[in-house]
Amino acid sequence: MAAKTPQVQKYIEAFATKNVDLIRELFAADAVLEDPVGSEPLHGIEAIAQFYTNTFQAGVTLQVTEQERVAGNSIAFSFNVIGEGFTISPIDVFELNAEGKIVSMRAYWGPENMR
Amino acid sequence: MAAKTPQVQKYIEAFATKNVDLIRELFAADAVLEDPVGSEPLHGIEAIAQFYTNTFQAGVTLQVTEQERVAGNSIAFSFNVIGEGFTISPIDVFELNAEGKIVSMRAYWGPENMR
Repeated sequence: MAAKTPQVQKYIEAFATKNVDLIRELFAADAVLEDPVGSEPLHGIEAIAQFYTNTFQAGVTLQVTEQERVAGNSIAFSFNVIGEGFTISPIDVFELNAEGKIVSMRAYWGPENMR
Repeated sequence: MAAKTPQVQKYIEAFATKNVDLIRELFAADAVLEDPVGSEPLHGIEAIAQFYTNTFQAGVTLQVTEQERVAGNSIAFSFNVIGEGFTISPIDVFELNAEGKIVSMRAYWGPENMR
């Protein structure tokens, strides 16, 4: 399914092209990332850029599985992360600032969402 | 799709039976509900019970569309609210306390998720 929000579109493009510069465009300097929810959050764009640098090395593809939910300053979306021999199915929630940059990313998934 | 977590199972049962007592069992006394995200939150079980009393009068059915995501103390899940002549497709996030009661419910949906 095609993403409709520019943020999720660019997020998928960043994964497809392994382009951390797009991540730097998407996230605010003081953003916080918690993936999965319940783990120690990462604070700030440098830690977040490093997280995606590592993730992109795994060579995964994102596929949105249902239309994004846009509510207030937030986007919630359901997707598959498809790698070699595995699929993880998170729900991510982005919170945006007034400029549309992500200030908070929380990824909800657990062992039951891996196959 | 059948819900796997007891909280979402009971939530669906509450809708199916229009039983606000089940809502009182599910939510903590000091819970906060924000539906949709971006609207004024409701505070406390009395306001929340009234919200569901009103909702149940509309006679809607819930259908989970993808397996719940369980992460840390949270459950995120994607579902349809099916009423007479309309369907709304939210993603809800429940945050639970140590007793498994819902302390925060946030419903992510917007105009693009109604049909």
